[in-house]
Amino acid sequence: MSNESRNTIFIGKKPLMAYVTSTLIQLANLPTVYIKARGMSIGHAVDVAQIVARKTENAGYSIGEIKIGSESLESQDGRTRNVSTIEIEVKRNN
Amino acid sequence: MSNESRNTIFIGKKPLMAYVTSTLIQLANLPTVYIKARGMSIGHAVDVAQIVARKTENAGYSIGEIKIGSESLESQDGRTRNVSTIEIEVKRNN
Repeated sequence: MSNESRNTIFIGKKPLMAYVTSTLIQLANLPTVYIKARGMSIGHAVDVAQIVARKTENAGYSIGEIKIGSESLESQDGRTRNVSTIEIEVKRNN
Repeated sequence: MSNESRNTIFIGKKPLMAYVTSTLIQLANLPTVYIKARGMSIGHAVDVAQIVARKTENAGYSIGEIKIGSESLESQDGRTRNVSTIEIEVKRNN
């Protein structure tokens, strides 16, 4: 498994706390984790990042760089549409 | 009206393009505009910022700093709950 996939949590339709737990496990092993989402899940990515940051601030973690973007998706009727994306860095402080 | 409110677009339940238009009008007059949202509207704030950035990149605007946070809201049953927030800066390049 590549390092890129190991340090990235993709937010989907599971309960929020499932992603919070996954992120905390990754942070125990890695200095930086990226929480990513697109479309309707973007709000949940922010929720997960905020919960993780609150639970880990005493342990020396914080929100780092936040990037937004968009991706072209081809829908089932063959048309392409743009979907927004977000990537939130959670990192160990120096 | 304070400068803070003039350079801030709050994303709510109107159609996306209403906020795109408001943001473009503010950018014509001000060097920096902040697109803000909370809760379920966070994804729409990213959509608006992406559309505005795409429409204005040739005119020399780009996405700046992005901040996330959370606010405590008191619901009608008297309990407080946290809601996530986002603030996206759109700015004129130097």
